Amino acid sequence: MKKRLLIDYKDIKPSCKDLEVIGIFNPSVIKYGDELIMIARVAEKVKQKKENTHYLVPSYKENKGLMVIEVPKSKEYDYTDVRVIRNHKKNYLTSMSHFRILRSADGINFTFNNEYIMPNNIYEEYGIEDPRITKIDSTYYITYTAVSSCGMNVALIKTNDFIKFERLGNIFHSDNKDCVIFPEKINGKYFALHRPNISQFGKLDIWTAESSNLIDWGNHKIMLKARVNYTDSSRVGAGAVPVLTKRGWLVIYHSADHDSRYHLTAMVLNKDDPNKIIMKSKRPLLEPTEVYEKQGFFQNVVFTCGLIADKDFLNIYYGVCDDSIAYAQLSWKQLWENLEEV
Amino acid sequence: MKKRLLIDYKDIKPSCKDLEVIGIFNPSVIKYGDELIMIARVAEKVKQKKENTHYLVPSYKENKGLMVIEVPKSKEYDYTDVRVIRNHKKNYLTSMSHFRILRSADGINFTFNNEYIMPNNIYEEYGIEDPRITKIDSTYYITYTAVSSCGMNVALIKTNDFIKFERLGNIFHSDNKDCVIFPEKINGKYFALHRPNISQFGKLDIWTAESSNLIDWGNHKIMLKARVNYTDSSRVGAGAVPVLTKRGWLVIYHSADHDSRYHLTAMVLNKDDPNKIIMKSKRPLLEPTEVYEKQGFFQNVVFTCGLIADKDFLNIYYGVCDDSIAYAQLSWKQLWENLEEV
Repeated sequence: MKKRLLIDYKDIKPSCKDLEVIGIFNPSVIKYGDELIMIARVAEKVKQKKENTHYLVPSYKENKGLMVIEVPKSKEYDYTDVRVIRNHKKNYLTSMSHFRILRSADGINFTFNNEYIMPNNIYEEYGIEDPRITKIDSTYYITYTAVSSCGMNVALIKTNDFIKFERLGNIFHSDNKDCVIFPEKINGKYFALHRPNISQFGKLDIWTAESSNLIDWGNHKIMLKARVNYTDSSRVGAGAVPVLTKRGWLVIYHSADHDSRYHLTAMVLNKDDPNKIIMKSKRPLLEPTEVYEKQGFFQNVVFTCGLIADKDFLNIYYGVCDDSIAYAQLSWKQLWENLEEV
Repeated sequence: MKKRLLIDYKDIKPSCKDLEVIGIFNPSVIKYGDELIMIARVAEKVKQKKENTHYLVPSYKENKGLMVIEVPKSKEYDYTDVRVIRNHKKNYLTSMSHFRILRSADGINFTFNNEYIMPNNIYEEYGIEDPRITKIDSTYYITYTAVSSCGMNVALIKTNDFIKFERLGNIFHSDNKDCVIFPEKINGKYFALHRPNISQFGKLDIWTAESSNLIDWGNHKIMLKARVNYTDSSRVGAGAVPVLTKRGWLVIYHSADHDSRYHLTAMVLNKDDPNKIIMKSKRPLLEPTEVYEKQGFFQNVVFTCGLIADKDFLNIYYGVCDDSIAYAQLSWKQLWENLEEV
C-alpha cells in the first residue's frame, strides 16, 4: 500500500480574521466531469485573547453569523479533552467546522478557490462535520453531521454543480453520525448506513435504514455491532460511500479501540440485501503507522469519508489526527487478500 | 377535575407461571365501534429464587420466547434504581413489559380477554413499552418503545381490527421514546412528535418529524425545549395523540423535574404548522396529589398515552407510579382556563 500526506492544515487560510485553522480532515471525494471534487471539513478556533481568564469558543447564530462565546476557565468546566469543553449543564466544541471545496485534475494536487459551505441554521450552531458525497442519477447528495445545542443530527444537502447547494433538512435525528447513502436503489428503496449514539443500552454500532425519497428514512436495523476484544471494540462507523463490486457492496469503515486508536477496516455486503455481511477484513486494512497518522491534534486517528475505486486501484482519502488529509492507494488484489468470508 | 384510580396492578394475572405482574400503566385508548379499546403496558418480573446470590431478569429471545438472565448480586452491578440494573458493560431492565388489550362499554369498567401483544424480535428483547394509538382512515397505528441491547427504538404496529397486528419495523432509531402520530395529514404530510435521548449536547426535548408513508420519517425539527427552572426542567415528552380543536392541535405532554416528579401539561399547536406553539399551560394541568399518584413502584409519576375528547369533557387515562392506571375528567372550560397564548 502506498501512503502519503496530501494536505497539511498549515497551508489553509482561515475563513475570517478572528479565526485560525487547526485542521483540514475527513474529506469526501467524487468524480465530476474531468475533475475530482473534494469536500473537506475545515476546523477553526477563535484566536485567544492575551488575558487568560476565558476560553473563546466559536459558534454560529442564525442571521448573525459568527459569534464568540466566552467560557470561564474555572473548575466548573472540564478542559481535559482538546475537542470539547464539558460542563454538567452544557458542552461546547473548542473549534467550529465548515466545508471547503477543492478541485483536482490528477487526484493528488488540489486547488482552493474560496469555495465554502458554511453553517447556516440552528442545527449547525457548533459547525458541520464529516461530509460524504453520493451521486444518484445526475444529482450529488452530501450527508453530514450538524452539531449544535440540539445535538448531533445527520443532515442532507443536494447539488447538481457544486456551486449552488440546497439544504434538505435533518434526515436522522440526534444523536447520529457517519451516514452514507448507497449510490443506487436496492429492491426499489434507497439505502443508508448510519451510526446512532446510544446512551443507556446498546453500543456504537452501524445501522441500516431505507427510504423512498432520500428525505424520510425508516426500517432501522442494526447491521454491524462493535466487537468486544477486537480492534473495533469501542465504536464502528461507516466511512466512504459503498462501492458495488463483483462480490457485493464494498464498505470501508472506521473502528476505534478503548484507547481511541482508529483503524480502517473493510466489509462486503450482499448486493441485494445490504443487511447481510458476506466478507470482513481478517485484520485492519489501514492503521496509524506514519508520524502524520500517529501525532497531531488528536493522535492515532485515521478516518475516511471518501474513496475513488478505478479499474486497478482503490484510492482512499482520509483524515489523520483530526488535522490533515492523507492518501493511500492499494490494489484490488491487496483488498481481496485482506478479506475473508463470514 | 374528577380523578380516580381505575385499574390496580394487583388485579392483573401474569402472562406465565414464572412471572409476576408488578404494573399495568401508561395506557393508550381509542374508540372502536361501540367499544373503548385500551392497550396497556403490563410489566412483569421473574419470581426470584430463595437463594439470594443472583437477581433474575426476564428477556425475550427470538424463536425461544421468555429467557431468564441471572445477574450476580455483586459490587460490579448498581442496583439503586428499581427499574434498571446498571453495569459499565451492560444494563438490564428489572422487569419486561408487554401489551394487554382491554375493552370497555362505558370508559370506566374494562374487561380482559387474554388478548396480548408480546415482544417478538431482537429489538424487543427487554420488552415493549408506552403504546399510543392513532386512527388514520380505517387503520389503527400503534407507536411504542422497543427496548433491547440495541437501544430504545420507536417501532410501529398496524391493525384494522385489534385482533391481527402487523409489525412495520423501527420508525425512529435508538435512543428515542414518546412518539405520537397526528391523526391526519398536514400540508400533504404525516406528522409526528418524538423524543430523542441526547447524550452529549442538547436535552430531553420534543421534536417533530414528517413522513409521506408513515414508515419513513425525516425533516426532524426541535419543537419544545425542556425549560430550566420550570416544572419541566429535566425532560419533556409527548403524551396522548394530538386532538384537533377550534384553536389548533391540543397536545397533553409529560414533564419531569430534577427529582423525577412528573406533571401533565398542555400546549396548542398551529393547525397548519405544528412546529408553532400558540398556547401553553400557565401551570401544570395535572400533578401527583392523590396517594396512588404519589406512592408506588416509582413515586410521583403521572404519565399519559391516551385521551378521549368528547363534546363536554377531556377524559385522560394515565399511568401512576409505574404501577397502576388512573383516570381524570376535566371540562373544556377548565382546559382553556389553564392555557395562555405564547
